[in-house]
Amino acid sequence: MEISMSKVVVQSFGMSLDGFAAGPDQSLEAPLGTTGPEIMEWFFPTKTFISQHGGEDGGETGIDNGFAAESMAGKGAWILGRNMFGPIRGPWLDDEWKGWWGEEPPYHVQAFVLTHHPREPLVMKGGTTFHFVTDGIHSALEKARAASGDKDIRIGGGAATVRQYLEARLIDELHIAVRPIILGRGEPLFTGLDLRSLGYKVDKYVPGERAVHVLISRHD
Amino acid sequence: MEISMSKVVVQSFGMSLDGFAAGPDQSLEAPLGTTGPEIMEWFFPTKTFISQHGGEDGGETGIDNGFAAESMAGKGAWILGRNMFGPIRGPWLDDEWKGWWGEEPPYHVQAFVLTHHPREPLVMKGGTTFHFVTDGIHSALEKARAASGDKDIRIGGGAATVRQYLEARLIDELHIAVRPIILGRGEPLFTGLDLRSLGYKVDKYVPGERAVHVLISRHD
Repeated sequence: MEISMSKVVVQSFGMSLDGFAAGPDQSLEAPLGTTGPEIMEWFFPTKTFISQHGGEDGGETGIDNGFAAESMAGKGAWILGRNMFGPIRGPWLDDEWKGWWGEEPPYHVQAFVLTHHPREPLVMKGGTTFHFVTDGIHSALEKARAASGDKDIRIGGGAATVRQYLEARLIDELHIAVRPIILGRGEPLFTGLDLRSLGYKVDKYVPGERAVHVLISRHD
Repeated sequence: MEISMSKVVVQSFGMSLDGFAAGPDQSLEAPLGTTGPEIMEWFFPTKTFISQHGGEDGGETGIDNGFAAESMAGKGAWILGRNMFGPIRGPWLDDEWKGWWGEEPPYHVQAFVLTHHPREPLVMKGGTTFHFVTDGIHSALEKARAASGDKDIRIGGGAATVRQYLEARLIDELHIAVRPIILGRGEPLFTGLDLRSLGYKVDKYVPGERAVHVLISRHD
């Protein structure tokens, strides 16, 4: 019998005090929605983020950075929702859009993008290949498991994708970074989901410099 | 010209990570709903709560207690929703129900109860008088202002009452105690309210022993 130690995780997932994981009105100019970047303002000053984006030096190395670093390390595969991959809706008109992240995305492993519209895999610099999965969240997870070996699979987002995997009880652990801000409008993370009935409990919380880090897991 | 320093405040208002201010299924046996007490588990161990309930000694005196104590001190009047006053719905059948708090409620000032059903004022021990206001939230606030002088008016809750006053932009400051727990179901505090458009911003947050205290105010 083979026992996989691989977990399905959500990490460094920002949420405003009023429950939003992204702002409203996502567009090419506003990948996280108009006010969405405020949710990630705990992440942007970290050494982890700055070094991802070519900054050799600098960046903070405190509690927030510890969580940020952990969330990027040791993943065997990623799963991304269509909107997290790009602002385009409907069929892919051409192969020009290659994600928000430039030539070298921060994933460095196989990344499975949920979409209703087929597209050839996209090989990027630094080890990331985007695979476009058209047959649903279970299929994407199977493919991610096959690709990840015994490493963890991270559901990158966005909110709608995380919600679907939560409802299906397929997520083992979540790290939510609660930002003390009010967004007013946007993409709700938990609204309408009965996480308690789904078996999720808070295990721990750790106040950081710019967010409170809450660790949740499924207790079967 | 007379300038009142009186503010309208919400304090020590518990909210779960998933946005609920009370559990589901409020009843005589479960004043905060079945799971609601978990939201207030930061408050129950404090010296403030324990001394309110006749405990001479004991209770914690840390950060949580500091917020708890401040929220009970120096109020000129309180406003309570009908459900915060009791589990009875519809007309008052008799005068038997005198609130959840026994003979000596913790308010010690005039307390205005929002209801659709008239009832004579109820004088309790220790200085609390419950007044039953049938003509809406603005009227209750006027009466509270008249009673409170230059002291603050605290909107005690529940969630529906706080939401109504927020929508009307009548609350100056809120202290929300965010509990790192998942309730799954209950009375949502902010869902559907665009607090940002209403002018509210987070000024500060302070991690306590069992809750994260978030201070919000209206920026006109």
